[in-house]
Amino acid sequence: MKCTARAEAETGRVTSMSDTLEKLAAVIEQRKQADPDASYVAGLYAKGLDEILKKVGEEATETVIAAKGGDAAQLVHETADLWFHTLVMLAARGLGPGDILHELEGRFGLSGLEEKAARKK
Amino acid sequence: MKCTARAEAETGRVTSMSDTLEKLAAVIEQRKQADPDASYVAGLYAKGLDEILKKVGEEATETVIAAKGGDAAQLVHETADLWFHTLVMLAARGLGPGDILHELEGRFGLSGLEEKAARKK
Amino acid sequence: MKCTARAEAETGRVTSMSDTLEKLAAVIEQRKQADPDASYVAGLYAKGLDEILKKVGEEATETVIAAKGGDAAQLVHETADLWFHTLVMLAARGLGPGDILHELEGRFGLSGLEEKAARKK
Amino acid sequence: MKCTARAEAETGRVTSMSDTLEKLAAVIEQRKQADPDASYVAGLYAKGLDEILKKVGEEATETVIAAKGGDAAQLVHETADLWFHTLVMLAARGLGPGDILHELEGRFGLSGLEEKAARKK
Repeated sequence: MKCTARAEAETGRVTSMSDTLEKLAAVIEQRKQADPDASYVAGLYAKGLDEILKKVGEEATETVIAAKGGDAAQLVHETADLWFHTLVMLAARGLGPGDILHELEGRFGLSGLEEKAARKK
Repeated sequence: MKCTARAEAETGRVTSMSDTLEKLAAVIEQRKQADPDASYVAGLYAKGLDEILKKVGEEATETVIAAKGGDAAQLVHETADLWFHTLVMLAARGLGPGDILHELEGRFGLSGLEEKAARKK
Repeated sequence: MKCTARAEAETGRVTSMSDTLEKLAAVIEQRKQADPDASYVAGLYAKGLDEILKKVGEEATETVIAAKGGDAAQLVHETADLWFHTLVMLAARGLGPGDILHELEGRFGLSGLEEKAARKK
Repeated sequence: MKCTARAEAETGRVTSMSDTLEKLAAVIEQRKQADPDASYVAGLYAKGLDEILKKVGEEATETVIAAKGGDAAQLVHETADLWFHTLVMLAARGLGPGDILHELEGRFGLSGLEEKAARKK
């Protein structure tokens, strides 16, 4: 999906841990076309946006419950579920993780250019 | 926080878009120590975990509403809010984005080693 | 709003505790017309349905947090908030508590007639 | 559970529509003891509080989605689901609808005594 992740993979270099989101978005995109009976993601798309949004709400609640509960492994599990289903939702709307990360970079001044400028000071 | 992101920044290379989460986690970690009146993040930590979790639930609902509404910019905005507050929540529990990405890599077979093996076939 | 509740109030008899929902719906209906700066409910209606729905999601999360926390008074407080905001939402859609109660009666066989029939057996 | 609802049922009089919540709470209380395989409510209690809270969060999301969708019947259906699961949650904590209604009465000045005083003016 994104040139950087793709290029890194091509060169065989150990990819950045956080390219995971782009790779996961690519997996979701592939599975959109799969048999709804064979793929969980394809099944969600076949059921439609409301079903995907129900999962987002459900996983958010499970994340809150896990955070209150205090078991770190469970919190990681539920947050991963939540992020995954937001990626499925974004893909249903023609969006991807890059759009969210770009928004966050803009808000927090995390883009490469700004960082470069900051280092010069 | 993570070596890869740090190393890339040092070399001045344009960093991978998705290292954003690690950089954002570092910003959150810094602001934990800030004056609660001056920093939104410090204010959340001062109020405690329940306040952070309320924001997670609130932003999840706003994400669902935005997805139903159909405005892409609003959906990006709300999803960014949701991801940001889950990072704040993770930090409150001593966890970070790497933990979630690692979990997702494991589930979907996205790790560098697996990918390398897959390319050899 | 509902004849039974109204009639009981007229006769001065101590009204059934659970007519509260009908009385509350009447209060909400009145406040719809109030000055948005002076009334919380009028303010919500002025902001529109999305704002009301955000409150429903927010209060649901706060209810879940309170239930995990174990403080009964807080759970009562948050559940009251949740029910109140669902009444505001219903009123925004031209619906009221009677519609929900009627649905629940139908599902669980709680209507007077069914109960009467059940007692005869 | 509550005297009024019980007394009315005894006399065979058409009960107030809104006593439904008390009757429903009584049904939930009964089913707590039932076989978890035979009763949905007993099944929820067997799985524990977290499972009940997940349902509260899930139904809140479905209510929000239904309200955005605009189908009145679906909104009634989902709100009924939400209220029902909050009653199951309250019962798990030794609370009932009367506690919530009493809280709402206090907030909005809806109690019989206040109403009586108001009528005298």
